Amino acid sequence: MAAEIVDPQSELDEDAIDPAFALHRGGKMAVRATVPVRDADDLSLAYTPGVAKVCSAIAEQPELVHDYTWKSQVVAVVTDGSAVLGLGDIGPEASLPVMEGKAILFKQFGGVDAVPIALATKDTDEIVETVVRLAPSFGGVNLEDISAPRCFEIERRLQEALDIPIFHDDQHGTAIVTLAALRNAAKLTDRPLGELRAVISGAGAAGIAIAKILVEAGIGDVAVCDRKGVVSADRTDLTDVKREIAGLTNRAGLTGSLESALDGADVFIGVSGGTVPEEAVAKLAPGAFVFAMANPTPEIHPDVARKYAAVVATGRSDYPNQINNVLAFPGIFAGALQVRATKITEGMKLAAAEALAAVVADELSAERVIPSPFDERVAPAVTAAVAAAARAEGVARR
Amino acid sequence: MAAEIVDPQSELDEDAIDPAFALHRGGKMAVRATVPVRDADDLSLAYTPGVAKVCSAIAEQPELVHDYTWKSQVVAVVTDGSAVLGLGDIGPEASLPVMEGKAILFKQFGGVDAVPIALATKDTDEIVETVVRLAPSFGGVNLEDISAPRCFEIERRLQEALDIPIFHDDQHGTAIVTLAALRNAAKLTDRPLGELRAVISGAGAAGIAIAKILVEAGIGDVAVCDRKGVVSADRTDLTDVKREIAGLTNRAGLTGSLESALDGADVFIGVSGGTVPEEAVAKLAPGAFVFAMANPTPEIHPDVARKYAAVVATGRSDYPNQINNVLAFPGIFAGALQVRATKITEGMKLAAAEALAAVVADELSAERVIPSPFDERVAPAVTAAVAAAARAEGVARR
Repeated sequence: MAAEIVDPQSELDEDAIDPAFALHRGGKMAVRATVPVRDADDLSLAYTPGVAKVCSAIAEQPELVHDYTWKSQVVAVVTDGSAVLGLGDIGPEASLPVMEGKAILFKQFGGVDAVPIALATKDTDEIVETVVRLAPSFGGVNLEDISAPRCFEIERRLQEALDIPIFHDDQHGTAIVTLAALRNAAKLTDRPLGELRAVISGAGAAGIAIAKILVEAGIGDVAVCDRKGVVSADRTDLTDVKREIAGLTNRAGLTGSLESALDGADVFIGVSGGTVPEEAVAKLAPGAFVFAMANPTPEIHPDVARKYAAVVATGRSDYPNQINNVLAFPGIFAGALQVRATKITEGMKLAAAEALAAVVADELSAERVIPSPFDERVAPAVTAAVAAAARAEGVARR
Repeated sequence: MAAEIVDPQSELDEDAIDPAFALHRGGKMAVRATVPVRDADDLSLAYTPGVAKVCSAIAEQPELVHDYTWKSQVVAVVTDGSAVLGLGDIGPEASLPVMEGKAILFKQFGGVDAVPIALATKDTDEIVETVVRLAPSFGGVNLEDISAPRCFEIERRLQEALDIPIFHDDQHGTAIVTLAALRNAAKLTDRPLGELRAVISGAGAAGIAIAKILVEAGIGDVAVCDRKGVVSADRTDLTDVKREIAGLTNRAGLTGSLESALDGADVFIGVSGGTVPEEAVAKLAPGAFVFAMANPTPEIHPDVARKYAAVVATGRSDYPNQINNVLAFPGIFAGALQVRATKITEGMKLAAAEALAAVVADELSAERVIPSPFDERVAPAVTAAVAAAARAEGVARR
């Protein structure tokens, strides 16, 4: 591979054009020592010869690795760069700014150290075996921006192979925050979750995970729609994951288009990036909830949604009720790492959603069914709930 | 894998017994954000939507990854835990305290970020393919504590596969610092390198690399000894690497024991952990140099060595002339990363040794042929020399 000379002038131009480039110059993160390394005495404790005793102790009693290294406070943020934001398959190097962003959000909001690991392979087997080989160094693995359906198999196989938390944030982070917002919207409008019928537009990582958590939480009914319409058991074109979802959802037996499914539905959840025409929005049941989370262009514009819906949420920071994963993943991992959980169970996810919803339970309004990402009560509440749920479910090491 | 409950009391006892344990509690390093993440405006630049523009720019122009991520300032410290300090094959988890120590030394002495990656495999092919897959996220790879002879093949194959610096510190760090000390010992005693005959005890990672760099630097002759004696071309029990070394060294055609090779030798270099009897030391040429680097027990005790040698060095911090790799690796990587070198060439290693030797060239004494690890002139000098050599050798990207 040939060395290529970068033109410094062209870089400076980019920095001047856009503050995002200026901010990203040199990256967004660094490592620091948490112990002194000033003199020979320091070195003799932090490095040889003192370190040898600590190594020997871990070799004899492996669980001590959690006490005497940073393993139990550091998460690998693992991607293959195949489904980055709305940009798609841009490859591992180009995904790194997102992974670094994720890493600093872990630190800022959850006090969790995180390291970006963008892999030069998109092969499912290779991703799984690579992460298994990396696992001794990390207390958890946050899978990020890996395209469906590979993301489902990768997560499942890693959970089977490893005894540390594995969490695909595009699935479960989104699902947890969505459920929290839905719980509060239902509470605000005094309707039990069990009486609501939801329609999800999008059967990728987020759509599938949202459908599953809504079913676990006791939603009345939910139909998932992909580009061909409702995911129903009679379809012959379904992937394994969609076939499983068809069995778990859509008790009403809907078939046909997204628009027909919206007729009389109580909840619209958009994680597709498509657009829903106003005529279809108008057919929602009275007092519906519209969570149009595509970014930057919601499936239904909030101004349109408000004409027909009681509660409107988006993925954007410039409208009320932002469904933002940062409300979940820092506290999820902080709680799981705190008790050295061996996995993140469904119970821990549900507990996270409840704790997140509870933060604003006494301040509910149509414009406030979910806390702001900068609400400082969020991460401690989620952390505590996840740690308690891990203990209750018997997956805590301490 | 079963969750195991750690007894907090037993840990506290360990902490109380030994300050090394107390210092290691919770690990020795952390990650930090280098950009603000205080409010929605910060988030919109460091994360979505601002980050998308940076990702897109890298996708279009891949070399921009060096400008807009931490890639070019972060090194993976990769081990399989198979040859950790003098402890041997203690496995990846137990090796982590050493890798964290290495990482904070990178930061403290070279300003280089580093991440411990202890792999759950000792298979050469698997280590190589794993590091190749990790490479998009890192600006360089420091191989650490991987046992010989696998370390040689792993390093060579990674150098062929990747366009970032790959450096096995146990080989080249030790070799560079040894050469620097030897240059100054020769200068102090006014003897040209080309007139010295050296004997190396130990044909592992360090011994092989020291032999190679001494030959490149123009040593008069060098014989490498393993447990069976001098590595000579007539032996039928040699590994590929030792066979290559037999061809590069021992122009005198020595055979037989280490002790016989020492008869009349000018330089003894110990990287074996064995012990050399005083009778053998007494047979060294007048004014010899003894570098007995085994830790914590030098092959020849410094008090004995001083009776026969003009210059004595060890690996210990409590005797003069400590041969400590921290004198080399931080500056080597800092220099290579500064110019985004695609590799670390032999010329860069020789330049590092010269720069390191030059730091104390005007202060030479028998007790000062190499700077202290805490000499603040060292890292900048090595960094500058390595960067300049990378440019001169055409492996710099800028």
